[in-house]
Amino acid sequence: MKIIIVGATGAVGKTAVDALSGRHEVIRVGRTSGDEQMDIEDIDSIRAMYSNVGKVDAVVCAIGHVHFGPVHEMTSEQFMEGINGKVLPQVNLVLEGFDYVNDGGSFTLTSGVTNRDPIRGGSCAAAANGALDGFVVGAAVDMPRGIRINAVSPEVLETCRAAYDGFFPGHVHVSDEAVGLAYSKAVEGCLSGQVIIVE
Amino acid sequence: MKIIIVGATGAVGKTAVDALSGRHEVIRVGRTSGDEQMDIEDIDSIRAMYSNVGKVDAVVCAIGHVHFGPVHEMTSEQFMEGINGKVLPQVNLVLEGFDYVNDGGSFTLTSGVTNRDPIRGGSCAAAANGALDGFVVGAAVDMPRGIRINAVSPEVLETCRAAYDGFFPGHVHVSDEAVGLAYSKAVEGCLSGQVIIVE
Repeated sequence: MKIIIVGATGAVGKTAVDALSGRHEVIRVGRTSGDEQMDIEDIDSIRAMYSNVGKVDAVVCAIGHVHFGPVHEMTSEQFMEGINGKVLPQVNLVLEGFDYVNDGGSFTLTSGVTNRDPIRGGSCAAAANGALDGFVVGAAVDMPRGIRINAVSPEVLETCRAAYDGFFPGHVHVSDEAVGLAYSKAVEGCLSGQVIIVE
Repeated sequence: MKIIIVGATGAVGKTAVDALSGRHEVIRVGRTSGDEQMDIEDIDSIRAMYSNVGKVDAVVCAIGHVHFGPVHEMTSEQFMEGINGKVLPQVNLVLEGFDYVNDGGSFTLTSGVTNRDPIRGGSCAAAANGALDGFVVGAAVDMPRGIRINAVSPEVLETCRAAYDGFFPGHVHVSDEAVGLAYSKAVEGCLSGQVIIVE
């Protein structure tokens, strides 16, 4: 398979690269690194990336930034950071990708744990993750040409433990391999409309 | 209790009015009808409504419009109709409401069935509902002064059966009374961070 992995150098995206690159042709896409550069918050940049890469069998997206902070101190603009930084970019990658994903191919998005196991200051993240989880459930039933769509929703990665110290008390940490397996299941497996939880 | 119900004349909001108005002082808020008029897509209009009404014990919101159509024909702008028409208005009603909701009060939002039981053309709706469900889960743990927050997620109302004919094949229809009970549980009960499903 020919597989686009967006956010390939991030902690999460790297697990997908490691899980899939041995058996497939992986196109690593990053903002400033990788095989292709793309600003996923710019829809024209998404279109240019697809145009450069051409037809593929799978698109994996592991990017997103959101606002963290107490809900009663959050502004409307801060809430929208989660929509514009995580939800809309991943959705746009799907909406713009239909002309490039082969019959029977797949899209795999990335949400996260905060909408099922909340943390302090995580309401923006939880909304963004909920939107992505909902989107794949809703979109799967409409997908043309046998294309599948799923979301991987990982717990905190072992490799991010230090960076997130104190923000996810009591949350389990998952290995790179476990997260990579979820991307393998989404891309190489048969599921559609599923939120693949890694915890 | 003094309770604001936004979308009070809609099919869903009316069930909350009927369930709560016998025992409480209900302020009906609508775009062009009710005790107070407000354009919930205009944050200044939300602020003006709160300023007019003053302190309350509960805020219920039962509004929202989204785009319906196949995901592979949806534009980015159409996807955002669900964010701007359903998610952000309800979230803004919370963010702007903290100065007006009394200690131990509550917010109750309204999502819907499409992110757990998808329908054709419903990916935008499913994303919006998922965002709202995620938001209440995430926000509940941050709420100050004992304020609670929940979402009511109803199946198709019996009273909307004709309007939605053909769009929700095989979905059960729920009574006004059943939906009203969910709002009663959210407002008068003790739950927080819950998606109260009516089906």
